[in-house]
Amino acid sequence: MNEIYNRLRELEKLSCNLYNKDFLLTWENSVDNLKAVMLIAEILQMLHTQKKVWRIFDYGLAISIFRDNSTRTRFSFASAVNGLGLGLAELDEFKSQIAHGETVRETANMISFLTEVIGIRDDMYPGEGHTYMKEVADAVAEGYESGILAQRPTLVNLQSDLDHPTQSLSDLLKLKDYFGSWEALKGKKIAMSWAYSPSYGKPLSVPQGIINLMTRFGMDVVLAYPEGYDLLPETLDCAKAFATESEGSFTQVHSMADAFRDADVVYPKSWAPMAVMQRRTELLKQGDQQGLKDLEQYCLAENKKHIDWECTEDMMKLTKGGNALYEHCLPADISGISCTHGEVAKSVFERYRLHTYQEAGFKPFVIAAMIFASKIKDSAKKLRDFC
Amino acid sequence: MNEIYNRLRELEKLSCNLYNKDFLLTWENSVDNLKAVMLIAEILQMLHTQKKVWRIFDYGLAISIFRDNSTRTRFSFASAVNGLGLGLAELDEFKSQIAHGETVRETANMISFLTEVIGIRDDMYPGEGHTYMKEVADAVAEGYESGILAQRPTLVNLQSDLDHPTQSLSDLLKLKDYFGSWEALKGKKIAMSWAYSPSYGKPLSVPQGIINLMTRFGMDVVLAYPEGYDLLPETLDCAKAFATESEGSFTQVHSMADAFRDADVVYPKSWAPMAVMQRRTELLKQGDQQGLKDLEQYCLAENKKHIDWECTEDMMKLTKGGNALYEHCLPADISGISCTHGEVAKSVFERYRLHTYQEAGFKPFVIAAMIFASKIKDSAKKLRDFC
Amino acid sequence: MNEIYNRLRELEKLSCNLYNKDFLLTWENSVDNLKAVMLIAEILQMLHTQKKVWRIFDYGLAISIFRDNSTRTRFSFASAVNGLGLGLAELDEFKSQIAHGETVRETANMISFLTEVIGIRDDMYPGEGHTYMKEVADAVAEGYESGILAQRPTLVNLQSDLDHPTQSLSDLLKLKDYFGSWEALKGKKIAMSWAYSPSYGKPLSVPQGIINLMTRFGMDVVLAYPEGYDLLPETLDCAKAFATESEGSFTQVHSMADAFRDADVVYPKSWAPMAVMQRRTELLKQGDQQGLKDLEQYCLAENKKHIDWECTEDMMKLTKGGNALYEHCLPADISGISCTHGEVAKSVFERYRLHTYQEAGFKPFVIAAMIFASKIKDSAKKLRDFC
Repeated sequence: MNEIYNRLRELEKLSCNLYNKDFLLTWENSVDNLKAVMLIAEILQMLHTQKKVWRIFDYGLAISIFRDNSTRTRFSFASAVNGLGLGLAELDEFKSQIAHGETVRETANMISFLTEVIGIRDDMYPGEGHTYMKEVADAVAEGYESGILAQRPTLVNLQSDLDHPTQSLSDLLKLKDYFGSWEALKGKKIAMSWAYSPSYGKPLSVPQGIINLMTRFGMDVVLAYPEGYDLLPETLDCAKAFATESEGSFTQVHSMADAFRDADVVYPKSWAPMAVMQRRTELLKQGDQQGLKDLEQYCLAENKKHIDWECTEDMMKLTKGGNALYEHCLPADISGISCTHGEVAKSVFERYRLHTYQEAGFKPFVIAAMIFASKIKDSAKKLRDFC
Repeated sequence: MNEIYNRLRELEKLSCNLYNKDFLLTWENSVDNLKAVMLIAEILQMLHTQKKVWRIFDYGLAISIFRDNSTRTRFSFASAVNGLGLGLAELDEFKSQIAHGETVRETANMISFLTEVIGIRDDMYPGEGHTYMKEVADAVAEGYESGILAQRPTLVNLQSDLDHPTQSLSDLLKLKDYFGSWEALKGKKIAMSWAYSPSYGKPLSVPQGIINLMTRFGMDVVLAYPEGYDLLPETLDCAKAFATESEGSFTQVHSMADAFRDADVVYPKSWAPMAVMQRRTELLKQGDQQGLKDLEQYCLAENKKHIDWECTEDMMKLTKGGNALYEHCLPADISGISCTHGEVAKSVFERYRLHTYQEAGFKPFVIAAMIFASKIKDSAKKLRDFC
Repeated sequence: MNEIYNRLRELEKLSCNLYNKDFLLTWENSVDNLKAVMLIAEILQMLHTQKKVWRIFDYGLAISIFRDNSTRTRFSFASAVNGLGLGLAELDEFKSQIAHGETVRETANMISFLTEVIGIRDDMYPGEGHTYMKEVADAVAEGYESGILAQRPTLVNLQSDLDHPTQSLSDLLKLKDYFGSWEALKGKKIAMSWAYSPSYGKPLSVPQGIINLMTRFGMDVVLAYPEGYDLLPETLDCAKAFATESEGSFTQVHSMADAFRDADVVYPKSWAPMAVMQRRTELLKQGDQQGLKDLEQYCLAENKKHIDWECTEDMMKLTKGGNALYEHCLPADISGISCTHGEVAKSVFERYRLHTYQEAGFKPFVIAAMIFASKIKDSAKKLRDFC
């Protein structure tokens, strides 16, 4: 129980403004806000382990809108809202279309009369996902302010074109747990590296989320990718500013080996170049099936040129003491298991497998914490009641 | 709180027999029954706004069977049963087929061992939907009476070929709220008018439900539609009788302008002619794909002849003071937004948009009230406990 | 209430080790374990009838994985976990594929951070279903033991290639209710007989489950099937041993009439020959669509040779007093209703229809009892608290 009370005391010292707020991007939030979400997540996880109840709702719905497939995040959201006392309802309507404007505004209100939370995953189209989340948020805010809705549903970003905050905060909680404290992360080197995958079109939100979160905590963040596999430029600018602020650093290289050298943490993960994702969005809007097929072929061929971007045992030997922590959002493309050549060697993955499970295990509680902090004005007080 | 207690006192004066009953058609119910459902709905909504609990079940399932697509009604049902304390389970089995007889009888019991409520939407086939609901109701009644089921699941009509009671009662609650009382509705003119839509095959249950509900409350109900867009004859006869009884009126015209003139309320909404819906059902049963395509083309061409049946600003100027209340069950076909030409002009819809949201906002509570009244013998007493 | 207390006293006398265990096969369990599950099921059903609460969880998920279609079992599982206090989440990921190994291991953990129960149906492929369930069980056991999961999700077999324990225990509970006691079953003859069906590929788990359960309780079990419609050999060996142990008997015949003669209970039900199911699995793995079509044609033709294996009125006259109890897991192929020629004559089925509903009505409580016994160390004590 001391572990919980230590965190409660830390939480009480923070100055955060999460009450009645949506959670869409880590970089819109102060470091205190981020720490608050993570502390609440840790406390909820401990309460769960102790089989204590942390329900804050007597009834109400949580709605998930998945415009891209998901198993891990879907079940994390389902778990989080169940623990908080909400019923889950999934909205499929917009799954296969890019809907905007009037329709979104109306539907968002129609489904929200007893809704406390809306979780959205919309990560495939640069310029679309975050915009869509804002539209939904604005629509229910209007509904609430005009008295149509008795409560304002909290929006939670379950992965957008820009950020994947429930993932990156889970990754960071794993680092805190592994290295012992937030202080211990200062000056630690993390290599966020592109890695080869035989698939195509993976979203950019994980690397963008990692470089913009770890730079807030004084880490030395190295982003590595082959020429052309650019992230969205505004996310790079943001990461640079954060690094300066936190007295960490942010550098970019075009070699996995350079990134791995002396790294404390490695995060080898495939993504599609921003330009490809933008082209793909255009082709999808035009319904150009042939164009999409051609683009996929082109990209898979491009990817193949970088098949050596794999997190092998040799690559791991370059890291600090040869035993940097391996992180991944899962599922990883594991060479010899899920594909012939992938992001990571089988033996490397196997060694860190349970670490990646633990990393994923924070996610339900991070989601629950975002909702908790938005709904409960004095989170620490409420959490004390559960202890 | 006075608002709640006023309604509780009104509820206590009513003589209603909803206990242990299904809710399939408003016209099977006394005016007292209808008022009871609406009063309970208002009270539940107020309890929700005050963040008070109105749970009546410790556990149990509510099953929804949607044989036609739905977002608004689906989420209204999900919300209602969540608030009442039930878990939601959706039955997809019969989605794409017209199943009858033995299969229905057996399946209805197989899914009902812990089921308190079954909500059904089956609105596309004249002569089918209501019949199907009765079959399910009879099946679980047999199961209950023979001791197979420990409780009798309550059937709730979420839209049939005949009626859409959860919608029409929500529409009526909006009128009561807008004009101040049920008394105030007496002598008010409502224009239930066909309107042009570029789609085809919309069900008849909304206009049938409206003319048979508003005539119970002393309103002057005018039904307007182009020649040939007939409703089911028995629903017209019923509306005439109700109008006589309530000292309101029921008239039919074949001009939108005539209907709108001096109207206090307008409800412009597209539907398919009964004869078309019947023909469509036959073709579906025969699996005649070409016949269905031909019918659709024919109907869309017919519809186009009446493209001037649109709720425009000019049309609205004909109404009482030029500012009749606009009602719609949503989604509306809005000209210039969801289609080039539709049921309503963009500027008209936008002016009444939040009114239509509020109208829709009654629906979860109307559904909950139907269940509440069927399960709780002394509804008013139970509701007092929640205050 | 005496009925409940009698069962509680009986339960307290049993020596069972169900705590923290999965429920995959009846034949892995002692007779005391089986009796305990059935007694708990009966008690839970009585509590439900008395509208008493039997919730044991404050929150948590129950996950169902249906790799074959299901309505009855799906709703039984949904009902059981709802009554116990869990939220339901369905995992579709593996529906259409035979997934193994790493993927299963990882996904099982990823969905289980707040999961108390995983129910799996995987009955179509000999050698696959049970293996898959063990893999999932091993994966979450590893997760629990290594501290990744705060609780060990209990696996419940909702039908495998080997056994269908939630069905067979419901069938047995019906027999106990019908004949009055477990003692009364000793020496009663049950005919588990193949029956003709115009469909193809029905799983073997029901007959395998029946012969291996009823032989535990001293019944005279006769398995009847046309030459070639063999069950898995290991399940036959097991049934023989059980019959010896319980002083019942187990015999095989190739005539429905021989099996029915003087039977107290008949269970006429179609299944596919083991060899066909194995061949089908190979063809599915190879993706050989033509091979699958050919196999289906071959099997339907083979089935037709045995169209006289129907539970007719004449066949029923052969049974003890002409009125053996008819059992079926439902849905039955009823001649003249669901097909021209099927497993059972319409008049026979109709006479026993409500009996089959009651038989099915035990299933939600059998599932709940398996979970209850796995989660609660002293089940009887906990159940007393609910009375």
